[in-house]
Amino acid sequence: MQPTPHLDLSADVVALTAQLVDIESVSLAEHALADAVEAALTPFDHLTVTRRGNTVVARTDLGRPERVVIAGHLDTVPVNDNLPHRREQTPDGELLHGLGTCDMKGGDAVILTLAASLVEPNRDVTYILYDAEEIEEEHNGLRRLALSDPDLLAADFAILMEPSNASVEAGCQGTLRVEVRTRGERAHSARSWRGSNAIHAAADVLARLAAYEPRRPVIDGLEYHEGLNAVFVSGGVAGNVVPDECVVTVNHRFAPDRSEAEAQAYVREFFAGYDVVLTDSAPGARPGLDVPAAAAFVEAVGGRVGPKFGWTDVARFTGLGIPAVNFGPGDPMYAHKQDEFVPADDVRRCEQQLRAWLGAPA
Amino acid sequence: MQPTPHLDLSADVVALTAQLVDIESVSLAEHALADAVEAALTPFDHLTVTRRGNTVVARTDLGRPERVVIAGHLDTVPVNDNLPHRREQTPDGELLHGLGTCDMKGGDAVILTLAASLVEPNRDVTYILYDAEEIEEEHNGLRRLALSDPDLLAADFAILMEPSNASVEAGCQGTLRVEVRTRGERAHSARSWRGSNAIHAAADVLARLAAYEPRRPVIDGLEYHEGLNAVFVSGGVAGNVVPDECVVTVNHRFAPDRSEAEAQAYVREFFAGYDVVLTDSAPGARPGLDVPAAAAFVEAVGGRVGPKFGWTDVARFTGLGIPAVNFGPGDPMYAHKQDEFVPADDVRRCEQQLRAWLGAPA
Repeated sequence: MQPTPHLDLSADVVALTAQLVDIESVSLAEHALADAVEAALTPFDHLTVTRRGNTVVARTDLGRPERVVIAGHLDTVPVNDNLPHRREQTPDGELLHGLGTCDMKGGDAVILTLAASLVEPNRDVTYILYDAEEIEEEHNGLRRLALSDPDLLAADFAILMEPSNASVEAGCQGTLRVEVRTRGERAHSARSWRGSNAIHAAADVLARLAAYEPRRPVIDGLEYHEGLNAVFVSGGVAGNVVPDECVVTVNHRFAPDRSEAEAQAYVREFFAGYDVVLTDSAPGARPGLDVPAAAAFVEAVGGRVGPKFGWTDVARFTGLGIPAVNFGPGDPMYAHKQDEFVPADDVRRCEQQLRAWLGAPA
Repeated sequence: MQPTPHLDLSADVVALTAQLVDIESVSLAEHALADAVEAALTPFDHLTVTRRGNTVVARTDLGRPERVVIAGHLDTVPVNDNLPHRREQTPDGELLHGLGTCDMKGGDAVILTLAASLVEPNRDVTYILYDAEEIEEEHNGLRRLALSDPDLLAADFAILMEPSNASVEAGCQGTLRVEVRTRGERAHSARSWRGSNAIHAAADVLARLAAYEPRRPVIDGLEYHEGLNAVFVSGGVAGNVVPDECVVTVNHRFAPDRSEAEAQAYVREFFAGYDVVLTDSAPGARPGLDVPAAAAFVEAVGGRVGPKFGWTDVARFTGLGIPAVNFGPGDPMYAHKQDEFVPADDVRRCEQQLRAWLGAPA
């Protein structure tokens, strides 16, 4: 057994980010980091700590009339020669480089700093640090918590610390994947007229995609932007065989004014005439800025708000009836990139704004 | 060491085919079969046997004014649950099923039967049983023999026992492969407008292929039939990434009135505007039926002759200045198929026709 790494929750929030980054926590291997988080939070008398798998929940219980969830995932995509962390001074301020700096240990550090230091927040807070967000839905720690301990998720409002440039990104777009299949008939390529080429038959599938015009609906004042993209194409049997199958895997990102079923119907219609198989689907979430708790939060952190294009667990909270927004340090464009980083100022700003919101007289 | 399997060259030629089939000889693993062939041929006083790697050459040396090469490859494509051989009686005659029955141990059995029994053929004969025809050109036993022992290949005419329905198939089409590449720019598929999709860009490449019209030139009275086919397509980085590259691998089969350079130029022009990389090329061979030795052979075996669409080592003999034809048992449509087979009558007819041709007074 490795000893549990020690996290210093009284450290500067950027220094704490660096500590979190240096404890490797690729999806399904978050054990060491979850142990460290649990060990660091347990000593605080104002928190009740619950561990489920590699998900750690810490709650205040002050009897406040309002409860907010502040959540972040502990896991990262695979290591790509980008650990340990590295700090860099630039004319625009300090950057923290390394796996998970952006997605989303900067946000996790904010959560842990607030949890440790806000002994009497003006709202009750449920801090959730969960595992397995970056992989298949079945493993998602928040999903499993919602099934095993729904009470621990109960709240009036939720903030997901997903990277959003330290401003509020509301709602999220849904995502689904389909496989569009063309078929042909195998033949030796020396006598190709005896067969029918399934790859050639995919020309029309790709032509439809190339001609696709995205919808850009405005929802609660935010402009979303859909997408329909081939993310994989594969076909071929051997270098001398006319192939009998070609598969184009298509990812559709849909604005939250459409349900999963509506988005699916749209894609099926788009590829009318072809064999379309759904392989993956997750709903979007409407911005929900008409909900008072959300509107008040946006106001408290400066009023800036944009749409979230990527899918996040905000959709899960929305599905549970809990209004939620994304509000975390780091540019989402750098998530999952080898050269991801987080600006130190983003981390500090998120920490200060949440502290001010939770520290003000309720 | 396994003992060398015994081949009975006095057996019926179909029984001998079955023996050859049951000695596994996937490309680069022909050692056992080459050993058996060498051991079976060496005892005959009328033959001079030379072994080079897993290629076995047996020559008569009767001082005849004309010499003919009769050649077949010993190797097969990989085993696919189709060994050992199986015999089947059908209303149309007996079939021999199993790996290599068609491509081309039926032909090899004909070669071995003739070599053993024709003590004083009317022409000198060089029987060649060679390895590694089914894989990359560099390994081809005939290619290596031409480099190491060009004298052993010297002849006035060559017969390749490649499956051709026990009739003469003259010449062969050339083959080349290119990779046609489209490029784009990566982006997260949730913000796809920041990138450019290389798979979508391949729509036009596939549309050109779908619209391709093959040439069907008539050469020496035989109608060839060209082909241009995508044999592979691949592209994609991850399920949430707009891909920056797509590769379409295209196989061009070209009639023997075009050189490799001409065929390449044609393909480059066909895909004008795209990045086209040649990965593989082999020339065709004109039918050469104007050469007296070839014309006489066609006449002797019944006068039926068609074009060979697939590439065979006939092109290599043609390149060496030796007129050559394909003449072997089995339907080439079944070569490389799991359910390949050879009609017993095809094997017997080839054996009898060659015996008659080589046994007649010169």
